[in-house]
Amino acid sequence: MDFDDALDRLAALDASGLHGEDFLLSWERTEEELRAVLAVADALRSLREDNRSTRIFDSGLAVSLFRDNSTRTRFSFASACNLLGLAVQDFDEGSSQVAHGETVRETATMISFMADVIGIRDDMYLGASHAFMAEFSQYLRESHAAGLLEQRPTLVSLQSDVDHPTQAMADLLHLTHELGGLENLRGRKLAMTWAYSPSYGKPLSVPQGMVALMTRFGMDVVLAHPPGYDLLAAPRDVAANAAQASGGSFTVTDSMADAFDGADVVCAKSWAPYAAMEERTVLHETGDREGLRDLERRLLAQNAQHRDWTTTTDLMATTADALYLHPLPADITGVSCAEGEVEAEVFDRHRDALYRQAGNKPYAIAAMVFLQKVADPATRLRELRDGAHPRWQK
Amino acid sequence: MDFDDALDRLAALDASGLHGEDFLLSWERTEEELRAVLAVADALRSLREDNRSTRIFDSGLAVSLFRDNSTRTRFSFASACNLLGLAVQDFDEGSSQVAHGETVRETATMISFMADVIGIRDDMYLGASHAFMAEFSQYLRESHAAGLLEQRPTLVSLQSDVDHPTQAMADLLHLTHELGGLENLRGRKLAMTWAYSPSYGKPLSVPQGMVALMTRFGMDVVLAHPPGYDLLAAPRDVAANAAQASGGSFTVTDSMADAFDGADVVCAKSWAPYAAMEERTVLHETGDREGLRDLERRLLAQNAQHRDWTTTTDLMATTADALYLHPLPADITGVSCAEGEVEAEVFDRHRDALYRQAGNKPYAIAAMVFLQKVADPATRLRELRDGAHPRWQK
Amino acid sequence: MDFDDALDRLAALDASGLHGEDFLLSWERTEEELRAVLAVADALRSLREDNRSTRIFDSGLAVSLFRDNSTRTRFSFASACNLLGLAVQDFDEGSSQVAHGETVRETATMISFMADVIGIRDDMYLGASHAFMAEFSQYLRESHAAGLLEQRPTLVSLQSDVDHPTQAMADLLHLTHELGGLENLRGRKLAMTWAYSPSYGKPLSVPQGMVALMTRFGMDVVLAHPPGYDLLAAPRDVAANAAQASGGSFTVTDSMADAFDGADVVCAKSWAPYAAMEERTVLHETGDREGLRDLERRLLAQNAQHRDWTTTTDLMATTADALYLHPLPADITGVSCAEGEVEAEVFDRHRDALYRQAGNKPYAIAAMVFLQKVADPATRLRELRDGAHPRWQK
Repeated sequence: MDFDDALDRLAALDASGLHGEDFLLSWERTEEELRAVLAVADALRSLREDNRSTRIFDSGLAVSLFRDNSTRTRFSFASACNLLGLAVQDFDEGSSQVAHGETVRETATMISFMADVIGIRDDMYLGASHAFMAEFSQYLRESHAAGLLEQRPTLVSLQSDVDHPTQAMADLLHLTHELGGLENLRGRKLAMTWAYSPSYGKPLSVPQGMVALMTRFGMDVVLAHPPGYDLLAAPRDVAANAAQASGGSFTVTDSMADAFDGADVVCAKSWAPYAAMEERTVLHETGDREGLRDLERRLLAQNAQHRDWTTTTDLMATTADALYLHPLPADITGVSCAEGEVEAEVFDRHRDALYRQAGNKPYAIAAMVFLQKVADPATRLRELRDGAHPRWQK
Repeated sequence: MDFDDALDRLAALDASGLHGEDFLLSWERTEEELRAVLAVADALRSLREDNRSTRIFDSGLAVSLFRDNSTRTRFSFASACNLLGLAVQDFDEGSSQVAHGETVRETATMISFMADVIGIRDDMYLGASHAFMAEFSQYLRESHAAGLLEQRPTLVSLQSDVDHPTQAMADLLHLTHELGGLENLRGRKLAMTWAYSPSYGKPLSVPQGMVALMTRFGMDVVLAHPPGYDLLAAPRDVAANAAQASGGSFTVTDSMADAFDGADVVCAKSWAPYAAMEERTVLHETGDREGLRDLERRLLAQNAQHRDWTTTTDLMATTADALYLHPLPADITGVSCAEGEVEAEVFDRHRDALYRQAGNKPYAIAAMVFLQKVADPATRLRELRDGAHPRWQK
Repeated sequence: MDFDDALDRLAALDASGLHGEDFLLSWERTEEELRAVLAVADALRSLREDNRSTRIFDSGLAVSLFRDNSTRTRFSFASACNLLGLAVQDFDEGSSQVAHGETVRETATMISFMADVIGIRDDMYLGASHAFMAEFSQYLRESHAAGLLEQRPTLVSLQSDVDHPTQAMADLLHLTHELGGLENLRGRKLAMTWAYSPSYGKPLSVPQGMVALMTRFGMDVVLAHPPGYDLLAAPRDVAANAAQASGGSFTVTDSMADAFDGADVVCAKSWAPYAAMEERTVLHETGDREGLRDLERRLLAQNAQHRDWTTTTDLMATTADALYLHPLPADITGVSCAEGEVEAEVFDRHRDALYRQAGNKPYAIAAMVFLQKVADPATRLRELRDGAHPRWQK
């Protein structure tokens, strides 16, 4: 990883809008802020490859507020924080209720006294998750303005019902590495398609995050899914507008084959119909276990009508030797399930690339935090490089 | 926060009795030791406000031994430890049994090999919690004396059945800030009253800690509760004696109105009758779920006879424009429950002050630990100020 | 603890085979590597006794992958990591299934991006645990070779079905301290015997680890157990071969008295018959709760036939004033159970020594990690000593 190239890119960008601000939705950030995240991520990776310390905190606390269970995301967040010198403290109040009002305000202030960063993950409650994070963000501003907090903790969304910015940014980072730079994404075709899965209830935020972000950089993004699996309108509108502004395109089709045809990048992943996710939110709030079981049955039956939506070697053969992306874990036919999102042979062939894709996650998160906490990132990065403080006394 | 003022106060105090010693009950500490905790807490806050590192550990381990569930206390402890450079490791052996004898000795020695500080929280077992901590403390002394431990880990009580010293010290810190210094507490009236709550089993240690501590500094403390909600005799005796020694007073009444009348500080919080808590300890030990459910029913019914014990705007209007304290979370009428400890309007008006009150907790804990681990705190604090090592490379 | 003596010992040893390698089975390591672990452990202890920092990581991550529940082992690992400057992140995916294939590879790569050390504990699944660790190790090598990981995380086994190397090395360390040096173990008799316990399912890895390791250093090791409680063949073969090579001996008997007679060191601990543990693995995989309950009944009945296999004062009187070892917790007759592995009087008399034995565990683990991560350990240790960086600003 070329440190100087990353710093040159960073020098030309204004990411000051991210300083002291929360990263909740990728479409709330300017293009320069997003490019700055990519540059800082690459610089941090370069430092780490040279065994240089990347700490900007002598002591500090990151809080993980997880309202559902995710070992992988928890791990990426902890890795990113450790890299910067932050200790991580979990503040998991359980996901049994949808919190609002006084409870959110109290939680926000309570954990903020000593927190530098707060990572929130909540992808279970369609219609409520992003709202929770936005409310949380607002209470932080109010408490800081009222002089109740010495420092303003910054939020990073580790997945909401609307967007999954750390995943999308990690995927973008991956594409810049595999395609030789951000400019090389322009004009390339990316297929974001639904895929069959024997489990239900997977969040919409992955495809939503993908289409909303990749259209910012001139890609020809094709979203494909069976009828009834529409994404939320807001990210679709973002994608359409972003495509227009960037000179790319955004198309929606109900044909997986059409999406894959000639694609340069493909991502085929299952998600639940959002109407069903909204229903699930209500059932969770009312604690209706019978209703939840019935919903699950209906969704699995609905999924089963589209078992042919799977990534096969034949489908891959119609692409332009496409990169295969997946946020993992994938439902691999014959390996982790009888029938799934992808054939074993396809997964095997792209395994190393999939692991490279995943390895970007901690750097994407660390870069977001770096830009939130450091006013002059280029100078700080140079100091870390020149200080040559070893991370590990080998 | 004025660093030099805090250091001037500290210079006049002898807190050597806290060095290498455990902080289990506030009334086991001298007045100078308590004043030293306040001074160090203020100094640490000042350093942090100036973005100076407050680390006294290059590496070190704090252990949290929680025998019940408390996210907030866990968080305060972790924040305090992080500030000083300690990593926190949980050692939660579950609360299913009341441990004694060999088990306590073994646990104490096992977690002490590498531990610098141990935070114990156990407020569930009336008649057993403080005893557990005292036993634990004794085994630590024996193991250290027998040469089995290189360093003597120090204990901090994060709440027992008898006292809640970190909460009480944080409240005291808060009052010194709001009233402009410890001397201004003298002669002020503080009402510590019971309040109605729709949940049962809240610990007595909050009111006990409050009355035992505030009477040390010349306050006129009035404890109010319905018949049958008496506190334990020991902290009441401490309060009575301390009031006499400090020139304050300690009165017990069964009238919430009389307590609030003309008060400068009020705290209205629910707690369970201690006879019931003793009964609950036995039922827990025998694992009698039916008995526990029956006990709960009886206590809720008993509480319900005193629904009028709630903090209203009318009651607040009878005070001397009192500061409203609450350890949080509060049961807020119409917000978190139908009927609770306080009216929403009162809570709203005092919300910012309540958050300021809560924000003292990590500093109170950090100050206790600082005095336990550092022989010459004033010198060390000056070094931290003059070394000007940034906590965070902004 | 004599630092210079430890460094002198280290200077004569070649531990380079441990650098960048995994520590899964003690018999995969050369004698010099094992001696190096002892020397580094003593050096680290010496530094810590002098309040010197022992950090070799400015930032870094250790991952604990526990597939069963063990508070003590989790604690030892966290203590060791903290000593070296590593933060610990748990990656506990639950023990409900035996993972294999794609799942293991994915887990291995996912948690390795930022991990420096991975501690794996899995002693539940006879026939599967060590295999899981070996598979994990292989995937790490492949991922590193494929350029997917910047650094090669090293594994430490925190107990498998086959060996418990950190326990065995801690016990060896303890014996060198109690007997005045490794050479003084030569020709001494060590009895590793089965003992009655009212609980079932204790792992075989403790006795297996003990006999496989102590025979490396010329001890006369006697393994005793009732019929039907044989250890696995592999560690027994290792013990027999090692005894021959080192000039010691390895005998198996069904008489606890014969084993104790004239012994210099004794360890009497319960374990389950391995056929039963294999059966349990299958029952777990199939989720057969009824079968597991039935297995438990049968094993408890089988144990009960050998209630006389317990450590009594009479038995201890037949030894050569033997050191009494136990990995703890012990089942103490009349204290933690009605009838157990050891009489209370014996345990009491040896309690301090047992705690000294246990206190070696974090140092044994830290020493293994030190040798895995540092190419020139002697130089690095001298730097830590000479740098005189205080661990704690007292």
